[in-house]
Amino acid sequence: MNGARALIQTLVDCGVDVCFTNPGTSEMHFVAALDEVEPMRGVLCLFEGGATGAADGYGRMADKPAGTLLHLGPGLGNGFANLHNARRAHTPIVNIVGDHATYHKQYDAPLESDIDAVAGACSGFVRRSTKPDEVATDAAATVAAAMSSPNRVATLILPADVCWLEADGPVAPIAPEASTAPSVELVEELAGVFRGGSNTVLLVGGRVLREAGQVAATRIAAATGARVLCETFPARQERGAGLPVIDRLAYLAEFAQMQLDGATDLVVVDTAAPISFFAYPEKASVLSPEGCEVREVDAAIDPVALLTAVADTLDAPTEVPVAAASRPELPTGPLTSETVAQALGALLPDDAVIVDEANTSGLFIPGATAGAPRHDWLCLTGGAIGIGIPLATGAAVACPDRKVLCLEADGSAMYTLQALWTQVRENLDVVTVIFANHSYAVLNMELNRVGAAEVGPKALKMLDLTGPTLDFVALAQGMGVAASRATTSEEFVDQLREALSTKGPKLIEAVVPPLGL
Amino acid sequence: MNGARALIQTLVDCGVDVCFTNPGTSEMHFVAALDEVEPMRGVLCLFEGGATGAADGYGRMADKPAGTLLHLGPGLGNGFANLHNARRAHTPIVNIVGDHATYHKQYDAPLESDIDAVAGACSGFVRRSTKPDEVATDAAATVAAAMSSPNRVATLILPADVCWLEADGPVAPIAPEASTAPSVELVEELAGVFRGGSNTVLLVGGRVLREAGQVAATRIAAATGARVLCETFPARQERGAGLPVIDRLAYLAEFAQMQLDGATDLVVVDTAAPISFFAYPEKASVLSPEGCEVREVDAAIDPVALLTAVADTLDAPTEVPVAAASRPELPTGPLTSETVAQALGALLPDDAVIVDEANTSGLFIPGATAGAPRHDWLCLTGGAIGIGIPLATGAAVACPDRKVLCLEADGSAMYTLQALWTQVRENLDVVTVIFANHSYAVLNMELNRVGAAEVGPKALKMLDLTGPTLDFVALAQGMGVAASRATTSEEFVDQLREALSTKGPKLIEAVVPPLGL
Repeated sequence: MNGARALIQTLVDCGVDVCFTNPGTSEMHFVAALDEVEPMRGVLCLFEGGATGAADGYGRMADKPAGTLLHLGPGLGNGFANLHNARRAHTPIVNIVGDHATYHKQYDAPLESDIDAVAGACSGFVRRSTKPDEVATDAAATVAAAMSSPNRVATLILPADVCWLEADGPVAPIAPEASTAPSVELVEELAGVFRGGSNTVLLVGGRVLREAGQVAATRIAAATGARVLCETFPARQERGAGLPVIDRLAYLAEFAQMQLDGATDLVVVDTAAPISFFAYPEKASVLSPEGCEVREVDAAIDPVALLTAVADTLDAPTEVPVAAASRPELPTGPLTSETVAQALGALLPDDAVIVDEANTSGLFIPGATAGAPRHDWLCLTGGAIGIGIPLATGAAVACPDRKVLCLEADGSAMYTLQALWTQVRENLDVVTVIFANHSYAVLNMELNRVGAAEVGPKALKMLDLTGPTLDFVALAQGMGVAASRATTSEEFVDQLREALSTKGPKLIEAVVPPLGL
Repeated sequence: MNGARALIQTLVDCGVDVCFTNPGTSEMHFVAALDEVEPMRGVLCLFEGGATGAADGYGRMADKPAGTLLHLGPGLGNGFANLHNARRAHTPIVNIVGDHATYHKQYDAPLESDIDAVAGACSGFVRRSTKPDEVATDAAATVAAAMSSPNRVATLILPADVCWLEADGPVAPIAPEASTAPSVELVEELAGVFRGGSNTVLLVGGRVLREAGQVAATRIAAATGARVLCETFPARQERGAGLPVIDRLAYLAEFAQMQLDGATDLVVVDTAAPISFFAYPEKASVLSPEGCEVREVDAAIDPVALLTAVADTLDAPTEVPVAAASRPELPTGPLTSETVAQALGALLPDDAVIVDEANTSGLFIPGATAGAPRHDWLCLTGGAIGIGIPLATGAAVACPDRKVLCLEADGSAMYTLQALWTQVRENLDVVTVIFANHSYAVLNMELNRVGAAEVGPKALKMLDLTGPTLDFVALAQGMGVAASRATTSEEFVDQLREALSTKGPKLIEAVVPPLGL
């Protein structure tokens, strides 16, 4: 067998059996070998940002990597922004970047560029395969790196001749590095902090945000009076009726500072200590109060085991307060971000996956869905907009029996709209709601917050999405997605109910005014 | 004034008065300062690949740089592919990448990434500004680098605080490095090669492909019997009735080898020696024949002055054969790539700019337009598809009085379709023709050429753009572009004539079968 077949067979043997592809000539042997390894599913994306974002969504929901197949440096470049988001989410991804044949690189052909440099900037592991007899081992090592704790984007650079030459055949999976069990000393130390602190905050993220971790964190709070907050943009949070309610640290630095006000001790588990998303003139970068002692737990330590052990050491109750089942009333009247949120809370189906790139328009949705049936919530983790539609696409591939709701700002939607086409081709069960407020609303807010002096018409035009107005119904239909537009709450409720009642991709353009932030 | 204003004023003073923007929070002071420097025109793009591709089109046509404004590493990543193409085209671009404030970088905020690494992979010059008192000088140096010979992509990384703090004010332009005058020795040496060679080929590219350079090359051929070829994918070639006709080196290696067959001497001016675009099993990378002596002229030397001096030394005639005015008949019957080409040749307006990302479907267009009124032809230079619509957008900004014709393959169009919106907002005079053959036709061809064994249905599905079929009329209308679909030659002729008769953006979806390559 050739290198491509050995590679794909190894990936499948390692559990990687979905690959989001946007191939070119240098990847043709990989593509040709897809038919030789039956379990590998190729999912075509019309743009690489769609492929990498889908791999992120898949990895977050499947807890194992999907592959991507990208075409040299420019293909990797197109996929960079969503790999950046995946890197921040600690999503396991096996990113495969085709390259010129090993002997061809010296000629600086038109598509030659420094793939290794770009890969290094978006990956936690980079390997360049150089020999067909080693490509299977390289693939197994790449999967192991992706699955090591904490998970990461692992990139394999794959020269064309390594694919087309005869290879030794597949190899067995390589064990990933597991997380470390928490030491007794650390457990005792943290238990002491929670016992002794006058105003302790436990900030959790990452793997803690599944049920077990949130229960453990809430137990600690119940036993000690500590407050629990979760990171601002979780990769995946389990929430809804029957689960503990953990408030998120606010995006706006001023609000985050208010949440942390008075804290004397801050324990940070599986996320970063709170810092401002951006810097602003005359405003602090570090958000914890002066004098607050911040303890960041090493990411190599199993965070759920740690918090559970701390809770046990504290003799914390095993039963914790959880969200009661409750839903908002169905909204009526003018359509706003708030009434869209009410409708979503009222109609959210059981076991949904919510992908949240609604940005400013999404402000009310967490509150409106807190008592809705249990669901997973996926955020934009790295600040690179254009994640939502691809992320929903990959989540739907991972979870074919769950409804995926993609809540998407209009400006962000335009970055990677092509992923809608893949939803149709793969008949994925995704309902996309576009919040059409016709502006980069977050930037209008930020323009004020950064202290920019007077704002003139040329500046405002850079933040405005009118002239022409985007027609998302036409755009969706152009890619084969059934779509409709809602301009009142009643219309939105009807269209959402209809979209949720059948399987397959749908899009609703919700015309809403920008929030007055 | 603050750093942003000093920067923008310096850019304007250096001749950079258009900036294709896709800003975020870290660029808000730049955006706010747009109103303070009247001549700077901000052009909003809905995706960074649109901004960088537009800057490429602008630079190729204006012979001076446009700016871009990109949001940190992910914004640069989104713009990477078209910066790669611009790097290959030697287009002058002043690429401005916002970054976190200098003191904020240490906190590894969510949008932090290695901008310098990514910038290095797509730029010929990278500078990181670190002090507001130096930002104006940094800007002038960046413009000078972009305009130095040969032109290049020059990237300025711009921390937010460097923009918002008080600065010293603008600085005067810095002189770019000019090209070197050819030495008498080199002129004599090359004249000797052309005089003495039994089968000499002159391969030209880059700056030679304007009228003066093509005339000089053709004079040499007329005087010595040498053959002239031009590079496969020129950044900008002036052509049409009244200009010399210079065949392009073929994309397919086999055909290029036939063109070069028998050559004993190859003189390469302002392009690279011929190598295969990709490597293929058992096929050569180097396309010049065994034993052919290849002389590559240093890119620092003024190529047009060189060829003119060589022609003069050879006492070459000053009058050279040129293309006679001639147009194909208007086509009738089924619509094919060939009849689209005929219609374009028949109806091409005076002084048009043709942007060619038609890929396989474009095979017949150069022939059909060779005797059409004089025009400029812009190619995909770096092999990173998704250039056409942005390139046309930027060319139209640079040339408001010329009709821009964007010839675009359907698969490629889907990478950067968002640039259509900018064409409407700026009321640009662009007619886009989508060759809708519903496949990555070039990859179907390449799949055979790379020697992949049997091709199964999973592989073919990765190269196929059906299920669902893209509706480019709906997609264009969704961004405010007037659009229509042609399925016969008569319909296409009518729609093209209509589109050419008025100003402003139009799109025609030409439904054509894939070429049987």
